[in-house]
Amino acid sequence: MGTDERAIHEAHSTWITAVNAGDLVRLLSLVADDVVFLNPGHEACGREGFSTGFTAAHQQAHIHCVSELQDVEIVGQVAYTLSRDTLSMTPRAGGKPMQFTGDRLTVYRQQTDGRWLLARDAHTLSPVEELCS
Amino acid sequence: MGTDERAIHEAHSTWITAVNAGDLVRLLSLVADDVVFLNPGHEACGREGFSTGFTAAHQQAHIHCVSELQDVEIVGQVAYTLSRDTLSMTPRAGGKPMQFTGDRLTVYRQQTDGRWLLARDAHTLSPVEELCS
Repeated sequence: MGTDERAIHEAHSTWITAVNAGDLVRLLSLVADDVVFLNPGHEACGREGFSTGFTAAHQQAHIHCVSELQDVEIVGQVAYTLSRDTLSMTPRAGGKPMQFTGDRLTVYRQQTDGRWLLARDAHTLSPVEELCS
Repeated sequence: MGTDERAIHEAHSTWITAVNAGDLVRLLSLVADDVVFLNPGHEACGREGFSTGFTAAHQQAHIHCVSELQDVEIVGQVAYTLSRDTLSMTPRAGGKPMQFTGDRLTVYRQQTDGRWLLARDAHTLSPVEELCS
């Protein structure tokens, strides 16, 4: 595995670790200024909308995400990846955990200092009971 | 607008025209061999799964898609775009049209002959009545 591919694998696992730790500061250090997130059933959002949504979700539920990186393509200063994600949200107020599963397409941009930052992210997470194929 | 950006705008509008015309052959000429499509509530699919799904959808409904290209980023041989899509599906058997709206993240790869082919596509189309933000 080359240096860039290793860096993308690291960016991916660091992201998931920070999601599960509720570490918004760490997450924001991993994204480009012009980042855009696409979420089913919601408007696309950037850093601010992501921060609001992430904070609200962690206030409402214990979140645990498992993400399997399935494909990494690196072309010059751009990388795009596919992962298979499973998300469990257990309401802090009590109640049954909700399970979501789906895929994620992520685009990373390499910066002039060599770091790879997340620039675009679109997932298709759906409630497990609704999943059809 | 440079040559590559014009080519991406053209790839985008040709795609939507072919979707609305039910022209699967044209669509398959616009995608890379290793294309992957992500759809909420379904497994990720390649050329074969896309063909099956597209054919079934057109057999069941009249489809009309409107897509507004909102952002085009070109970095070397990769381009990634964001669009805002609205999809209307009117059952051929009769009944009320279903409306979906959402965003789409698309990654294009430039080929050695200069053509830009669609390599990855993830959308977050949701029924309009379910949309929240």
